[in-house]
Amino acid sequence: MMTTESFDAVDVIRTKRDGHRLSPEQIDWVVDAYTRGVVAEEQMAALAMAILLNGMDREEIVRWTHAMIDSGERLDFSAALSLPTSDKHSTGGVGDKITLPLAPLVASFGVAVPQLSGRGLGHTGGTLDKLEAIPGWRAALSTEEMIAQLESVGAVICAAGSGLAPADKKLYALRDVTGTVEAIPLIASSIMSKKIAEGTASLVLDVKTGAGAFMRDEADARELARTMVDLGTDAGVRTVALLTDMSAPLGLTAGNALEVRESLEVLAGGGPADVVELTVALAREMLTAAGRTDVDVEAALADGRAMDTWRAMISAQGGDVDALLPIATDTTEVRADADGVVTGLDAMQVGVSAWRLGAGRSRPGEPVQAGAGVELHRTIGDTVRAGDVLATLHTDTPERFGRSVEAITGAWTIEADATVPERRIVIDRIA
Amino acid sequence: MMTTESFDAVDVIRTKRDGHRLSPEQIDWVVDAYTRGVVAEEQMAALAMAILLNGMDREEIVRWTHAMIDSGERLDFSAALSLPTSDKHSTGGVGDKITLPLAPLVASFGVAVPQLSGRGLGHTGGTLDKLEAIPGWRAALSTEEMIAQLESVGAVICAAGSGLAPADKKLYALRDVTGTVEAIPLIASSIMSKKIAEGTASLVLDVKTGAGAFMRDEADARELARTMVDLGTDAGVRTVALLTDMSAPLGLTAGNALEVRESLEVLAGGGPADVVELTVALAREMLTAAGRTDVDVEAALADGRAMDTWRAMISAQGGDVDALLPIATDTTEVRADADGVVTGLDAMQVGVSAWRLGAGRSRPGEPVQAGAGVELHRTIGDTVRAGDVLATLHTDTPERFGRSVEAITGAWTIEADATVPERRIVIDRIA
Repeated sequence: MMTTESFDAVDVIRTKRDGHRLSPEQIDWVVDAYTRGVVAEEQMAALAMAILLNGMDREEIVRWTHAMIDSGERLDFSAALSLPTSDKHSTGGVGDKITLPLAPLVASFGVAVPQLSGRGLGHTGGTLDKLEAIPGWRAALSTEEMIAQLESVGAVICAAGSGLAPADKKLYALRDVTGTVEAIPLIASSIMSKKIAEGTASLVLDVKTGAGAFMRDEADARELARTMVDLGTDAGVRTVALLTDMSAPLGLTAGNALEVRESLEVLAGGGPADVVELTVALAREMLTAAGRTDVDVEAALADGRAMDTWRAMISAQGGDVDALLPIATDTTEVRADADGVVTGLDAMQVGVSAWRLGAGRSRPGEPVQAGAGVELHRTIGDTVRAGDVLATLHTDTPERFGRSVEAITGAWTIEADATVPERRIVIDRIA
Repeated sequence: MMTTESFDAVDVIRTKRDGHRLSPEQIDWVVDAYTRGVVAEEQMAALAMAILLNGMDREEIVRWTHAMIDSGERLDFSAALSLPTSDKHSTGGVGDKITLPLAPLVASFGVAVPQLSGRGLGHTGGTLDKLEAIPGWRAALSTEEMIAQLESVGAVICAAGSGLAPADKKLYALRDVTGTVEAIPLIASSIMSKKIAEGTASLVLDVKTGAGAFMRDEADARELARTMVDLGTDAGVRTVALLTDMSAPLGLTAGNALEVRESLEVLAGGGPADVVELTVALAREMLTAAGRTDVDVEAALADGRAMDTWRAMISAQGGDVDALLPIATDTTEVRADADGVVTGLDAMQVGVSAWRLGAGRSRPGEPVQAGAGVELHRTIGDTVRAGDVLATLHTDTPERFGRSVEAITGAWTIEADATVPERRIVIDRIA
């Protein structure tokens, strides 16, 4: 028996293909019918490519986002908790371990931070992969466990359940294999559908730009940030975006256990200046959005309050906070071949090298090595001499060194007698 | 075990998505890998949409066509036969029964005409569906049967085997459901890959434009014609295209048995002027391409030679040339509501009406009604009075009349005191 569908998939595809607006009804139908399997994968792939090339206007993006929200369940963290909530999302980059110190830092001020996170794919690491380097830590929590932990600890970082925006989950997997990941309307609606569905009251977005970012081009990153801020605002979520620099890696590590170690340095009041700067900037935004404007963020790093919340957060999910972090079995070194000052360090090359060392995966579901990754000894602004060690590469599978060294070779731009302007991590604020 | 592939599908998609040329090696790989199932349907759908929106240059189209040819077997009609061969392809339209009188007409001059034809989908009919209205006639022939019939009769109209350009067969089915049928590079390579693979020495293309055509816009039709002529010429096939008018239906019938009956009128020396004009124009081109320039084409229609070849051609495939053609059980009439002259007759509306009456199909494999269709009593240039019968609709399933009448209502533009310029069937010749 034929079911009666309100629209025909080919008509919807043709509408966008020919540069027209999709009607609200077409959008509702196509997202729902795709989730039900009535619109086939190949049909959605053609539509996604047409959206990437012909765009969607603000009204279409809003409707698409809400159609994805409507494909699944909605949570309401704001209503379920006695604490104010503030959420954060980063578009991802190389060495981006900011969530790790940030969530407990903000929670230490009595603001609940629910972080539904993902795993890495390709050259960018995933927050869950990083935390899984801690012995015993588990990513999967039920909604009840999550809410209980938010009440007791204030911070939770866990795997997103499958109930939120299932249309997005299906569509993301499709975009990944069809060259349609880079469509700004689809990126924005993918991120925001999950954030709106989880019911946070406020949201801070870290939109990265530069060589190691998803949006290399600053204008694209700015458009994405603006689109997401509009989407959040329209849905009643206080939303602000920071446009941040991802031309070079954040901090001095890229790899799972290596990044946990660096995060612990930050929580202990130390750590690389750029990681501290971005962590503090995002914490201020999250606290402001949650109505906490008169707080001394740096103090909570210096006096151990953020570290206490970290330990509680990790322990609550089974992590052994006193256990030694995994260390890779083999290392090799990359050395400078000239004297000078480091004026550039290509984040993408570092990310690909860490990935090839075993820190990342090529396909969803592949295991990653906890100890693998890149430890940087020289970064932008540092003086080097020929023969100096620029980085140490770590892996449990030393046969990977060849291609990893190849990936990172040439990542450092070393110039004689150059002066390097101070790196601005936060390029702009979009509200 | 992983197989080693030369390219990554996502990289190929991104290349075209970002407006760059596909390299010859990328094209060879992606067509072959798609045929092997390594490139998934959704990946090819995204690539097809990127090709539709960003185009391909001549070199890319040539390579793509040859990659599709290389996906299957090649015939060599020119070498297998003692007669010269000439083939014809039409992009299809409403009431386009031209192949039926044309193939035997050309063959009656000693030129072999192999017509590997298809079935209809949507508002355009298929040549095989039309011939299957003749009791006993069968479409499926082996290559040996086809060649034997070409030698003995000179003309054959049969189903294309699955051996020619299987990549095209797979890609065509995909384009049909993903809104990517209209990509000129893909239309041109689809048609020409099969024609080049069958090994004809010369080819005449009938590229239609106007309301009932696939390419409604004349500039698009012209570009398609030029692309195909270039492709054929590059491959050593003498190729010429006629750009022809499909704003109104060809002849006075749309429907399977109805169109066979009209074709028989043409073969008997009569029939509608537009059908005769186009049949003769295409026959001249095919004969010229095969080296037969000094022949009186009209004479072969008038003196019964073309009809003799038709009878031999139909009989050779089991058709009973003396049987009565099927007649639909029910009819209804469409009448004029004003006096005047018919200045326009929308081919698309007539085609959709015939389709809804049961003459066409909505999905591949659906049966069609032999007797169903539209019989036109008034066409462009005719004078009408309010109440005159404009058309008779035929079907075996009278419950279909409602939507069929709805489709055809308003198809006639009737103006008082208008003069209608003579219709030019052949708009241009592209060689």
